[in-house]
Amino acid sequence: MALIVQKFGGTSVGNTDRIKNVAIRVAKYHAQGDKIIVVVSAMSGVTDNLIKLAKEIMPLPNEREMDMLLATGEQQTIALTAIALHALNIPAVSLTGAQAGIVTDVVHTKAKIHNITPKKIHELLDAGNVVIVAGFQGETKDGQITTLGRGGSDLTAIALAAALKADLCQIYTDVDGVYTADPRLVPSATKLAEISYDEMLELASLGAKVMQSRSVEFAKKFGMVFEVRSSLNENPGTIVKEETKSMEDVVIRGVALDKNQAKVTLVGVPDKPGVAAKIFKALGDATVNVDMIVQNISHGTGTPQTDISFTVEKADLLKAQKVIDGLKKEVGLRDVIIAEKIGKLSIVGVGMKSHTGVAGKLFETLAQAGVNIDMISTSEIKISVVIDLAKGEAATKAVHAAFIG
Amino acid sequence: MALIVQKFGGTSVGNTDRIKNVAIRVAKYHAQGDKIIVVVSAMSGVTDNLIKLAKEIMPLPNEREMDMLLATGEQQTIALTAIALHALNIPAVSLTGAQAGIVTDVVHTKAKIHNITPKKIHELLDAGNVVIVAGFQGETKDGQITTLGRGGSDLTAIALAAALKADLCQIYTDVDGVYTADPRLVPSATKLAEISYDEMLELASLGAKVMQSRSVEFAKKFGMVFEVRSSLNENPGTIVKEETKSMEDVVIRGVALDKNQAKVTLVGVPDKPGVAAKIFKALGDATVNVDMIVQNISHGTGTPQTDISFTVEKADLLKAQKVIDGLKKEVGLRDVIIAEKIGKLSIVGVGMKSHTGVAGKLFETLAQAGVNIDMISTSEIKISVVIDLAKGEAATKAVHAAFIG
Repeated sequence: MALIVQKFGGTSVGNTDRIKNVAIRVAKYHAQGDKIIVVVSAMSGVTDNLIKLAKEIMPLPNEREMDMLLATGEQQTIALTAIALHALNIPAVSLTGAQAGIVTDVVHTKAKIHNITPKKIHELLDAGNVVIVAGFQGETKDGQITTLGRGGSDLTAIALAAALKADLCQIYTDVDGVYTADPRLVPSATKLAEISYDEMLELASLGAKVMQSRSVEFAKKFGMVFEVRSSLNENPGTIVKEETKSMEDVVIRGVALDKNQAKVTLVGVPDKPGVAAKIFKALGDATVNVDMIVQNISHGTGTPQTDISFTVEKADLLKAQKVIDGLKKEVGLRDVIIAEKIGKLSIVGVGMKSHTGVAGKLFETLAQAGVNIDMISTSEIKISVVIDLAKGEAATKAVHAAFIG
Repeated sequence: MALIVQKFGGTSVGNTDRIKNVAIRVAKYHAQGDKIIVVVSAMSGVTDNLIKLAKEIMPLPNEREMDMLLATGEQQTIALTAIALHALNIPAVSLTGAQAGIVTDVVHTKAKIHNITPKKIHELLDAGNVVIVAGFQGETKDGQITTLGRGGSDLTAIALAAALKADLCQIYTDVDGVYTADPRLVPSATKLAEISYDEMLELASLGAKVMQSRSVEFAKKFGMVFEVRSSLNENPGTIVKEETKSMEDVVIRGVALDKNQAKVTLVGVPDKPGVAAKIFKALGDATVNVDMIVQNISHGTGTPQTDISFTVEKADLLKAQKVIDGLKKEVGLRDVIIAEKIGKLSIVGVGMKSHTGVAGKLFETLAQAGVNIDMISTSEIKISVVIDLAKGEAATKAVHAAFIG
């Protein structure tokens, strides 16, 4: 008899028919005698609609009240899911985040889980119930309703699994698991049976947004093994866990292409201490998330000058341009060049740590495919290059073929 | 500086524009330095939609889970109302029923308020906030979410006003107050400045459904004076309070016509002990709400027989017919006659207690208007007659003219 946490996202509970399907799936595990905790998100569209209502009243609504408002989405789904289990004659009880004992700090709209007191959950499980817990939400010590921010329901599931020492934590989503590349792009891409937390984190920060980084980080911190799998079929998914020795035999776990980046090049930046700091502090203050940064060598006469390139999400580009325009005179830039038609291609794998020549092989593969490299950035288990967007897909296929097959 | 409880129903908060209007109204009182508690219902349509979703999954969903589901409607409105007050620069904090300290029994979907611990409300009021409380809901001692059933938001408002010893409790609705008759029917009908709890209760149980009886009964029990008024204009409404000596000077407070009744006549009922009891117990068991009952004198040879007539809501007629059909043989009825085209005309007034000749005047007025009386029922402060539906409106006008003007 296993203790299992199963999490279903907004699409999986998007209407009453889908909620019934979730119940059927839960029922199968229940029939095996497992103890089951189900974590659900709001039905898809519900949260967006509530945000729209609030913004009709005020553009920047108070965050405590937004939490009060948005927490209702998950509360509706837990009740409907419990009812769907009752319809199958399975005893089930729903709990809000607060009732489930999920205590958070007071940072509304992006609260951190402080601790979990799963007394109520244990009582209900012991009495034979499936327990349905509202994802994405908790309560402060003094009874304020909080929400956990984007990806919060995954976090609820993983935190509950860790607190309850669950045997299994399953994150059901609309994809089959984590692939070696986007299967729409690379037909030969295969589903990974397992992946390490760090690899998953690198992939999450790239194009492959199966889960938010925060949940993976939480799982890594508590060593909570979990499985990402589809709510639409019975296929086994991808197990996410601490890296093992055997994982290092595989050099490259996945290839990802991020088409959502833009490149900003600052031409003729005075090469003196504090200038780069000033620029990136200003960008940070404006909540522009800078990804890769490359600084070329210094050149010119008089005050030496350099060029600095960095990438940002396309959504942040306008904000970034404003910041740079504001600094242009003060810093003394000669020019600003924006490139939107770029792609960021990355290869990820813990095997890189113990294998040499990975970068060389990557660059050679791209050269043979006629792809020019614009920027390079590396971490211990990842190499990213910025290339021409038009060549992104062909490059991804070539790199996947070279490293994975 | 007064302490005021203001309650707004689902139509008054039906969309974000209306919620903004509620905020503007609250702001006026706040500007006078009053301490204000606002109680709101779910936005109109929201509760019905949630019920529909639940019934798509299961025809008779579990009541605990229905409470979990339906409580979200009011929780959404409180957050949006708080945001609307913030937009006017007024400090406001929303509280769920549970957070407001409303403790109920565990009878899900129709819980009774057990007690109110308004500590949190007082703290927030003292800090200068408008406090927005979710109507219709509470929490059991062990943290289960409950709802109070139909008219529950009125009950929340009146119970809070009583617990906080509020100076004023205003029930905002889509009518101006309580009228001497339905103004669409009787153009000369006038709004009552005040009415006693008992008169309001009799009117509530008739056609004039301004409020559910339960809330009025609660107010009567705790002597909580409240005002029914419109959220669409600034007109003063009707004050509902304990009857005073001066109220008795007015013999008839209002005339009401209920077109929603049907009459069932059982012909040839054996006139022996226990037969009527059997019939009405069976109807009660089937949750048919029987209103008036009239039994004629006994006649016939052999076992004496009698005729029994009773009225039920048209909505309950089919259920009633089924019950009667099931009993027909067992009890030995000769025939069952259904009359759907009837109207129940009632006059209400505490003045009846100290004035004689009211019934005589009513019957005479109806006779002069050519209206035949089918059934009669009286209480201390009410006389009801069943008449032909086709003559209902003319009869109402005639009676209003005779008693009120």
